[in-house]
Amino acid sequence: MDVRAAVAYEAGKPLTLETVQLEGPKAGEVLVEIKATGVCHTDEYTLSGADPEGLFPAILGHEGAGVVVEVGPGVTSLQPGDHVIPLYVPECRQCEYCLNPKTNLCQSIRVTQGKGLMPDGSSRFSIGGKPLFHYMGTSTFANYTVVPEIALAKVRKDAPFEKICYIGCGVTTGLGAVIFTAKVEPGAKVVVFGLGGIGLNVIQGARLVGADMIVGVDTNPAKRAIAEKFGMTHFVNPKDVAGDLVGALVDLTGGGADYAFECVGNVKLMRQALECCHKGWGECIIIGVAGAGEEISTRPFQLVTGRVWRGTAFGGARGRRDVPKIVDWYMEGKINIDDLITHVVPLNRINEAFDLMHAGQSIRTVVTY
Amino acid sequence: MDVRAAVAYEAGKPLTLETVQLEGPKAGEVLVEIKATGVCHTDEYTLSGADPEGLFPAILGHEGAGVVVEVGPGVTSLQPGDHVIPLYVPECRQCEYCLNPKTNLCQSIRVTQGKGLMPDGSSRFSIGGKPLFHYMGTSTFANYTVVPEIALAKVRKDAPFEKICYIGCGVTTGLGAVIFTAKVEPGAKVVVFGLGGIGLNVIQGARLVGADMIVGVDTNPAKRAIAEKFGMTHFVNPKDVAGDLVGALVDLTGGGADYAFECVGNVKLMRQALECCHKGWGECIIIGVAGAGEEISTRPFQLVTGRVWRGTAFGGARGRRDVPKIVDWYMEGKINIDDLITHVVPLNRINEAFDLMHAGQSIRTVVTY
Repeated sequence: MDVRAAVAYEAGKPLTLETVQLEGPKAGEVLVEIKATGVCHTDEYTLSGADPEGLFPAILGHEGAGVVVEVGPGVTSLQPGDHVIPLYVPECRQCEYCLNPKTNLCQSIRVTQGKGLMPDGSSRFSIGGKPLFHYMGTSTFANYTVVPEIALAKVRKDAPFEKICYIGCGVTTGLGAVIFTAKVEPGAKVVVFGLGGIGLNVIQGARLVGADMIVGVDTNPAKRAIAEKFGMTHFVNPKDVAGDLVGALVDLTGGGADYAFECVGNVKLMRQALECCHKGWGECIIIGVAGAGEEISTRPFQLVTGRVWRGTAFGGARGRRDVPKIVDWYMEGKINIDDLITHVVPLNRINEAFDLMHAGQSIRTVVTY
Repeated sequence: MDVRAAVAYEAGKPLTLETVQLEGPKAGEVLVEIKATGVCHTDEYTLSGADPEGLFPAILGHEGAGVVVEVGPGVTSLQPGDHVIPLYVPECRQCEYCLNPKTNLCQSIRVTQGKGLMPDGSSRFSIGGKPLFHYMGTSTFANYTVVPEIALAKVRKDAPFEKICYIGCGVTTGLGAVIFTAKVEPGAKVVVFGLGGIGLNVIQGARLVGADMIVGVDTNPAKRAIAEKFGMTHFVNPKDVAGDLVGALVDLTGGGADYAFECVGNVKLMRQALECCHKGWGECIIIGVAGAGEEISTRPFQLVTGRVWRGTAFGGARGRRDVPKIVDWYMEGKINIDDLITHVVPLNRINEAFDLMHAGQSIRTVVTY
């Protein structure tokens, strides 16, 4: 079938609107009509050429929501008409990773997904007979896409696509880091480095679980108002701190953070986030993605005296299990997504989403079809 | 009273046998007759002058066992005749740290202990009217010492002092890292870097909790026999590995270690210990103490893909609660201490213990009084 897609032909170039060809779903696959998709920093990272594993030409996009149109042979958990959110971290419930409660990193289709292909090793997208690569197993920058059954979370039908698409990546990454990875307890003191979309979702996650103190750290004072709306109790601008930021955060929290989250991707902040943690039990959770080849470092004394350094991907969430819950939380008013979606554009203006991101003018831009 | 002690007058010099004066126990303190003490790398580290916080003149020693002789005012949990192991990490059961189940690092007397003094800010030891510093709150290189009540574990009376003294540091550090810090599960795959006394105790801890695969890593092939006796299932000599040690360990363990322990204090090994861990859930536990100012580093990707970096001190054990249990395990034959104590010398030959350590000829030398 012919579908409308934004194609990434080349690193560093804008996306090109095209009519491309999409094959129907094979065994274990599902055809989804995408109704809305967020444009995320990870799409930008790949499009920029900075991602060493980026493949071109490809159909990017990994933060979508839509409706099942057709299921391939053997698909049992979904049927046409179901509302779904594609998952770039699938949940097969069968692999060694899915069977280990300590991780959410299902590996069942990792190899082909990393190659921009469906699990059978081929692509469903093509243009003029030439294949286009899939991206993160989702390729939501097309109005129809084919996704493995294990990479689709079935969600309630009354939830608006143009809001819940954000749960496909940013919301779950921030909220999940608090709830599933760190398991922040009520009364905790939390420090959040970086008040972009991820950081704001960390903040509302910390508020949701009852943290006492939620400290936001950002060099941009304009972030303060919205962060406070999401639950931030204290704001620290490193530019206003005379002397050592770590020491200031330890003082402010009365000994250090119980949990600190790095939401920027800056290896220096990752160190500060560890070192501002409380002796004995403080945990630093790295969410941000650092530049290729960059390294974190610290004195091992930081760990021997009880701090823990860990990371998270997709917020430690198991997509099929947890994403529907997060959609419910949104519908019940427990979390705020509306204020994070600052811009909505139609597909033919998708490149504006990247421009807004580069200009720092958006938290999240959503593309609707 | 006059007591016999090995005094550290100066960094880099041997200990001097002296008769020194010891004041009786003040409120909350206990006079202990030391019957045996191990000589540990930490004593050596301080005596060498490498420890930036080392104080002289002092009475070193922190791995002792003995008998309560007299209790000061207010002491309720001990009485003369009780057998005890002094604890360089006390357990007050009242401070913010003791009340947090995530840590064993009781801070109630940390400041004075770090200054070589008893909690009231003074020393009980002197010679010719000049005070001598305490060390780690224990000073077991004297046949009598004064220790706070909260820094004494009461143990069964039928356990031999010259064996259980080792539980005061080395045994608990290694065993506890497995049991209390890492909480290794049955069936786990464990990698241990460094097969000295700590590493061997990690190995027997891993065996005790039912690990399936226990890989020992050491450049000295002579360590193999005793490590196998303690439960090591596979030996890897980095000198025999063509290519990358991390890759070899990942292959050997079928994907990486569930838990890796660094027992040397080498920051390069600390990185390898992290990176040989299994994606998704592997945890690296740092036990060794690195040189002053040295740093660990890695790519944050290691953490974002699910590995955890943590450390441990005194094996995460709460001394008054856990040390008596470990003494029981020794008496019940669950753990082997006898084969780790390779040398026993009287106090007047204590300097030989340091010589044996430098020469790599001992696992542990115990001094008896």
